[in-house]
Amino acid sequence: MPTINENFLKLEKNYLFINIAKKVNAFTAAHPDADIIRMGIGDVTQPIAKCVVEAMKKGADEMGVKETFKGYEDSGTGYDFLKEAVAGYYKSFGVDIPADDIRINDGAKSDCGNIVDIFGNDNVVLITDPAYPVYVDTNLMSGRTVIYADSNEENSFAAMPDENVKCDLIYLCSPNNPTGSVYTKDQLKVWIDYAKKNNAVIIYDSAYEAFITEENVPRSIFAVEGAKECAIEMCSLSKTAGFTGMRCGYTVIPHELTVKASDGSEVSVSQIWGRREGSKFNGVSYPVQCAAAAVFSEEGMKQTRANIEYYQQNARVIAAALDEIGIKYTGGKNSPYIWLKCPNDMGSWEFFDLLLEKANVVGTPGAGFGKNGEGWFRLTAFGDKDRTVEAMERIKKLLK
Amino acid sequence: MPTINENFLKLEKNYLFINIAKKVNAFTAAHPDADIIRMGIGDVTQPIAKCVVEAMKKGADEMGVKETFKGYEDSGTGYDFLKEAVAGYYKSFGVDIPADDIRINDGAKSDCGNIVDIFGNDNVVLITDPAYPVYVDTNLMSGRTVIYADSNEENSFAAMPDENVKCDLIYLCSPNNPTGSVYTKDQLKVWIDYAKKNNAVIIYDSAYEAFITEENVPRSIFAVEGAKECAIEMCSLSKTAGFTGMRCGYTVIPHELTVKASDGSEVSVSQIWGRREGSKFNGVSYPVQCAAAAVFSEEGMKQTRANIEYYQQNARVIAAALDEIGIKYTGGKNSPYIWLKCPNDMGSWEFFDLLLEKANVVGTPGAGFGKNGEGWFRLTAFGDKDRTVEAMERIKKLLK
Repeated sequence: MPTINENFLKLEKNYLFINIAKKVNAFTAAHPDADIIRMGIGDVTQPIAKCVVEAMKKGADEMGVKETFKGYEDSGTGYDFLKEAVAGYYKSFGVDIPADDIRINDGAKSDCGNIVDIFGNDNVVLITDPAYPVYVDTNLMSGRTVIYADSNEENSFAAMPDENVKCDLIYLCSPNNPTGSVYTKDQLKVWIDYAKKNNAVIIYDSAYEAFITEENVPRSIFAVEGAKECAIEMCSLSKTAGFTGMRCGYTVIPHELTVKASDGSEVSVSQIWGRREGSKFNGVSYPVQCAAAAVFSEEGMKQTRANIEYYQQNARVIAAALDEIGIKYTGGKNSPYIWLKCPNDMGSWEFFDLLLEKANVVGTPGAGFGKNGEGWFRLTAFGDKDRTVEAMERIKKLLK
Repeated sequence: MPTINENFLKLEKNYLFINIAKKVNAFTAAHPDADIIRMGIGDVTQPIAKCVVEAMKKGADEMGVKETFKGYEDSGTGYDFLKEAVAGYYKSFGVDIPADDIRINDGAKSDCGNIVDIFGNDNVVLITDPAYPVYVDTNLMSGRTVIYADSNEENSFAAMPDENVKCDLIYLCSPNNPTGSVYTKDQLKVWIDYAKKNNAVIIYDSAYEAFITEENVPRSIFAVEGAKECAIEMCSLSKTAGFTGMRCGYTVIPHELTVKASDGSEVSVSQIWGRREGSKFNGVSYPVQCAAAAVFSEEGMKQTRANIEYYQQNARVIAAALDEIGIKYTGGKNSPYIWLKCPNDMGSWEFFDLLLEKANVVGTPGAGFGKNGEGWFRLTAFGDKDRTVEAMERIKKLLK
């Protein structure tokens, strides 16, 4: 009789966004005429850039012709043309990453979860709270001990390390999901120094880097000295280029990164990861990789940049409305997320219900991201421009 | 200091096919003019059917227009249009699977590996030997005990259960990779009865089902009574429709399948799997799903069927050549693989080197698939027709 992995039974029954979808579906079933505006799940709404679509179609055509057909990738870690394009993108903001240290995947979420495979289950994992639920859930699924660094109003939702706390793996996300807060270069240096002192490995999620506007906020942890000896970075085209439905991302594992095995030998993290991928992954669809590479072309960057500016304008609309009704928030400046304090000391889910029922606006309850999220609420700037304006009008009317 | 998952250090350093690629690369570097024919890795060579390419391009176009743009899938388990197409495909060979029991993924290899997540690491895993290395490696990575059922010349490489052996999880693959052997309906019934008696779960890999030609060989384990209470099936479009570079497959987890938790409660395997996918997966690229659905259309089936017949003809060429020089083999009839006994009592790698050096033909050493593979060798029928004829001429010349 097989045993189930009972760690699953200790988790919340559903992934956060599935719970939200259920609540919204129940509401729309009861109110079929309600004009719902969705600012909950961090999903984009602008279409894929034309030159990216064309690159995918060209890739598809190649698959239909024997001479240009592509089967399995030799490495399963991405075609060189795409790895080099990603390396060039890093270079455009001053970060040197060898193409060989880049692994192409089907989105940052997959590797954020899969990375647990290669570390021992006895590791203590430090996660800033609130956090993207994937970090916590995937570690709990493996039976690991998870401890938290509090991100809260006092530290502007940018938790810093506590020298008295020991840990082995650290999850950081900047610009942060859900709070929209960012780490400056100096703050990241403190984390890196802490990681090195504790021989810890940082798993750095930079999925929202394309939204950074300020000079002293790094687009990559590898912009900070010493990171290559202690960090793995995960990024994605989901938010950079609207790839949430296209599915392509990348993980950087520096070849410098090693971990000591119990026999004292130095083990290459990149090599162990390669062994994992060799057995559980077979690479990303070729036409998707063609599309991804086109994102990093001059024309692709120009077109996708326009989409990001569109969302940044939405963020300003949301921020202005909140300013107008005197609601506190973080984010919005270097991030597509606005993290607001629920008015009148309401709880997160209470505010969720209020917004859904009275304004027909869907947001994400902060409590779904951890204990420090209680009383806070996430809105995303990824919506349609007119709908965002409309949503904020409704919210202003409701809360003024 | 993080610990590494030291189970990785006990594995062979590289995935089998990476080792083969390295050997071949070294040979071609030393002999740049050698005209290598690759019959090693089970990769297809025929292009994707035209109607499938067109469906992907249509999907790509939809991504470029705001009104038809697709972001995250709500469920992440596949669009209904594709699940229903897969359900219809099952129906075409007489198997009833509700669309909701089908999970769309980026290929059978991923889920064959990922499925380990949801079961306890104390399970005893029974794998037929020789086997596709993914079953063994991913269980060893999780620290599980793996025991083997011997497939060998005496049982025509179709291992049957031993009533004296107890296990919790069973991996079966029919048509088999690497041996090309198949289980008849009666043989599968014996496995199902054994699994039920032991309360074991069968993980059934049907990736090569499209190559089945004989009536009494089921295309799915669910064609056999009782399977829905004890089996999970994994299949892929890689071999059915040349999707090795497109990346799309499906896993069937019957809603009937439950496992008892330590507190005595019945746990739905499908629900636990959903929780895993919710945290570690975000669905398959929309245009890839459009392409996959087109495979199951009338025109798609016709076009992909022609490719399978092309490979089946190659299998007949390989078989005829081996018959001519008096080499024993299994497979080739319901399978794209021909599993041959190395001549003159040669070892698998010895024969690999001989074929590479003297005939410039790459095959796969049987020893790479487990102890019962030693002395055996796999050739694939997935090559180009003329090249397959040429390879067999070279082999005949070498071994006659």
